[in-house]
Amino acid sequence: MAGGIGSRFWPVSRTGRPKQFLDILGVGKSLIRLTFERFLKLCPADNIYVLTNAAYRALVLEQLPEIRPEQVLGEPSRNNTAPCAAYAAFKLQGLNPDANLVLAPSDHIILKEDIFLENLRQALAFTAENAAICTLGIQPTRPDTGYGYIHFERESYQGVHKVRAFKEKPPLETARAYFESGEYLWNAGIFVFRAHTLLRAFERYAPEIHRILGAGAALYNTPEEEGFLAENYPKTPSISIDYAIMEKADNVFTIPSDIGWSDLGTWASLHAESPKDEGGNVVQSRLLLADNVSNCLIRAPGDKLLVLKDLDGYIVVDEGDVLLVYPKSKEQEIRKVTEEVQERFGERFS
Amino acid sequence: MAGGIGSRFWPVSRTGRPKQFLDILGVGKSLIRLTFERFLKLCPADNIYVLTNAAYRALVLEQLPEIRPEQVLGEPSRNNTAPCAAYAAFKLQGLNPDANLVLAPSDHIILKEDIFLENLRQALAFTAENAAICTLGIQPTRPDTGYGYIHFERESYQGVHKVRAFKEKPPLETARAYFESGEYLWNAGIFVFRAHTLLRAFERYAPEIHRILGAGAALYNTPEEEGFLAENYPKTPSISIDYAIMEKADNVFTIPSDIGWSDLGTWASLHAESPKDEGGNVVQSRLLLADNVSNCLIRAPGDKLLVLKDLDGYIVVDEGDVLLVYPKSKEQEIRKVTEEVQERFGERFS
Repeated sequence: MAGGIGSRFWPVSRTGRPKQFLDILGVGKSLIRLTFERFLKLCPADNIYVLTNAAYRALVLEQLPEIRPEQVLGEPSRNNTAPCAAYAAFKLQGLNPDANLVLAPSDHIILKEDIFLENLRQALAFTAENAAICTLGIQPTRPDTGYGYIHFERESYQGVHKVRAFKEKPPLETARAYFESGEYLWNAGIFVFRAHTLLRAFERYAPEIHRILGAGAALYNTPEEEGFLAENYPKTPSISIDYAIMEKADNVFTIPSDIGWSDLGTWASLHAESPKDEGGNVVQSRLLLADNVSNCLIRAPGDKLLVLKDLDGYIVVDEGDVLLVYPKSKEQEIRKVTEEVQERFGERFS
Repeated sequence: MAGGIGSRFWPVSRTGRPKQFLDILGVGKSLIRLTFERFLKLCPADNIYVLTNAAYRALVLEQLPEIRPEQVLGEPSRNNTAPCAAYAAFKLQGLNPDANLVLAPSDHIILKEDIFLENLRQALAFTAENAAICTLGIQPTRPDTGYGYIHFERESYQGVHKVRAFKEKPPLETARAYFESGEYLWNAGIFVFRAHTLLRAFERYAPEIHRILGAGAALYNTPEEEGFLAENYPKTPSISIDYAIMEKADNVFTIPSDIGWSDLGTWASLHAESPKDEGGNVVQSRLLLADNVSNCLIRAPGDKLLVLKDLDGYIVVDEGDVLLVYPKSKEQEIRKVTEEVQERFGERFS
């Protein structure tokens, strides 16, 4: 899945070139490229499909030259993850009635790749054998209120636990209770299922989406696919797969996973996950003179000289046409800032 | 005089395009242009000469198209103000034995232009009649340790006071005593004299400069001038006119002047002198979104969007290839910073 806008990474992430297509980590590769290369260790490039907004089709093909245009599934509208997952399931089932797949975001980091791949293989083996949806649940390291939680049963079958419930982002007290109980995992949005299994769940729990997208079952993977989608996809309700399916289905399982995961949702989480200098700064800038600068995230083009002094806990991002100097602790306001920028200065910085 | 480097205004001021040639005030005109237009109210463009480093000749002619190349006096080396004043006096005396002139910096601001011009006319009238050097002394508004002081006699002849002594930049206690006594003025480096009078002072108090530059007296304003200067000017001692002449001569007078003067020596003084928004910010940037930002100096190219939050008392200057975010109270360190930049990254940002 590579259809998001990444508005919390503004001004680096823009509508025309969002987060997943950018070298957010400063390592020389975009997030989608890193994700793609991670999955290449699980399956050949031919089996990797990218769900994205139709507007990003060219970007995907540019960054992943190993895949064919047919492997890029362009969504004609932004309708959240449920219609997107249903579309993928219909299309892949058309190609292979036994299709067994991993649905995953393209813009997360996973530091422990070996464990990640091992857990996915285990999940794929489980869903191949069972009419189950399996998710990798992340062992929480703090009572974070920014994630959904998965309540799982203690008993397991070879490490696969039945899910009791999906929980939306909780208030802090609840998050603390979840964290302390040891019975909750973070929902990282990584799901494993056979297309057939998922579509049956849609039929039951999200019949409208199933009906609208199912009407084109015979048209997927034909020249009619694009026209059908353009007309019908926007009619589907905009709803997340968590809410449409996972919170309701009774055949959801999870594998507790310690995979060094971060959703890289914000500048602060990027700061938390990245290597730091002795002052606690994450520096993505080649020419820097910093004095008494600590706990900052500093990013600028390679040929720009930054001279900084007496800053603690700031995001300092120079993105050519925009300079952001913002306290890291208040970064949740950045989304509002982008709205205000749009209001006052138009679309040019969006 | 337009030969300085303005290193304290880095990164805006660079060796190749220093402060006086820049729109430091953000008003659409460079400082030298503003100074030139101010003097046009005193005399025709033909009578305005610019003393500058030979390297800036083209810049001067570009910004002051009203003057002829002969009016730009290029110093072959940076030897401070004494040799520069002597050169000007020799050259202008060659053009007019009675030349009566104002020697002034090109990079100061003067807000009360009418009083300034009135005081200059008074000084010119005084030096036309007397073998005197007259300086405009600035009424101090605080015990500043960054300026030289002029100790003047209470008695005056039509507002012109005899100078008792020139004092170098004093320590704070001394500056306080000067300020409270009411007998001291700031030395703004604005001097009025007949060329003849100044050269007699050089003959007596700075004979080496007089000898070296006087040897070419017959060559000034001829095609030989440039060659003579190139060979001899660099041999003059590098010394200020204050130290070489003003501190020693007994025919120096001053007119206490309330002309809204600032030498704009640093970013902080620019901040102090410029109009501010309700948060006490001086904003030289068109696209700005600032929240809880106060007492800052904010400057950026017109098409750059700045989003700033929670900054008090900072200089935030984006100059294309350099970004400076620096506490205003520590700006005296900026000169050291430019040295470090040069050491670490070479000349490209100098």
